[in-house]
Amino acid sequence: MDPESRGGAGESRPRERADAARNRRAILDATAALLAEHGAGAVTMERVAAAAGVGKGTVFHRFGSRAGLLDEMISEMARTLRQAVTDGPPPLGPGAPPGDRLRAFLDAFAHMIADNVELVTAYRSMPPHPQRDEMHAFWGAHLTALLAEVRPDLDAEIVGSLLLAPLGGDLLPQMVRAGQRERLFAAYRQVVDSILPR
Amino acid sequence: MDPESRGGAGESRPRERADAARNRRAILDATAALLAEHGAGAVTMERVAAAAGVGKGTVFHRFGSRAGLLDEMISEMARTLRQAVTDGPPPLGPGAPPGDRLRAFLDAFAHMIADNVELVTAYRSMPPHPQRDEMHAFWGAHLTALLAEVRPDLDAEIVGSLLLAPLGGDLLPQMVRAGQRERLFAAYRQVVDSILPR
Repeated sequence: MDPESRGGAGESRPRERADAARNRRAILDATAALLAEHGAGAVTMERVAAAAGVGKGTVFHRFGSRAGLLDEMISEMARTLRQAVTDGPPPLGPGAPPGDRLRAFLDAFAHMIADNVELVTAYRSMPPHPQRDEMHAFWGAHLTALLAEVRPDLDAEIVGSLLLAPLGGDLLPQMVRAGQRERLFAAYRQVVDSILPR
Repeated sequence: MDPESRGGAGESRPRERADAARNRRAILDATAALLAEHGAGAVTMERVAAAAGVGKGTVFHRFGSRAGLLDEMISEMARTLRQAVTDGPPPLGPGAPPGDRLRAFLDAFAHMIADNVELVTAYRSMPPHPQRDEMHAFWGAHLTALLAEVRPDLDAEIVGSLLLAPLGGDLLPQMVRAGQRERLFAAYRQVVDSILPR
């Protein structure tokens, strides 16, 4: 009997929650695998369900739609970096000098996008989402605060946006797909190093 | 009698060419005015024809489609900068030190996009065009050559692309529309100055 269809009484609840969490994880992992292996075109609710070993209804029940599923993938990706920034070990997390934190953040951001190129590309073609704005505001504030400490002579807010912008365009996906990931990271570091004093 | 409908004999030819050139100019100028005043949504073949004082058939005959018209607008915009780079006075044209040429080029490029925000935004949502690739290749080669002279320690090709990238995203149109044009130019100059030695 499907635990999700049971009444909510007594000891079945923890089991429901454990099943739900397991399903959620299986669906997100299956989506990630489909994206990595076959690109965004392969991500349909049917294929995700089949790859996760759950019913299609379960995927719809949890995520509402393909857009909802991709939203959750992006959120999880962004939450991981955000947590590392607010609570993780230095230099990404608190405790390191601002220049080191800034380098670590931009490097981690570039890697996050490169590791999720198919997801990010698919997500970009979707309609805007309030949660996306909130996330951008967080990255922007973090970058601005650090940059203002290290280079008080600059317009930290706009220079911060200019530094993030190249990671949001077509260049990064193109280079990652062409196997030039490391070359991109190295060139990006050269730009960042030019702006931050050693 | 419409000069375009005459047979091609004798002295009518220069007049045909003059009429054609005048119509072409009137159509392109009308398109620019519609874009600036009402945005890309206002650019329909009907409205362009009306604003240029020509028949709708003339606009179709010369440009084929709305996409063809916007293509020609972009080409003309890009040709102007390209000509200034190859044949114009220094520092944009030949003769100035490479660092000065680079600064002048990036500044001119940022101004070109900012002055044509509606056109560029409309153009970006159109399908790719071979001519666009050729133009990008020219900007890229110019930038790479100058950067390699001024900062031989950098990966000039990719750093050049990273420098142009922020001018291709949403940031510039957003700031121009929000009346923050000059602030954007100033911050962009701060980034460029950080990369180029004084």
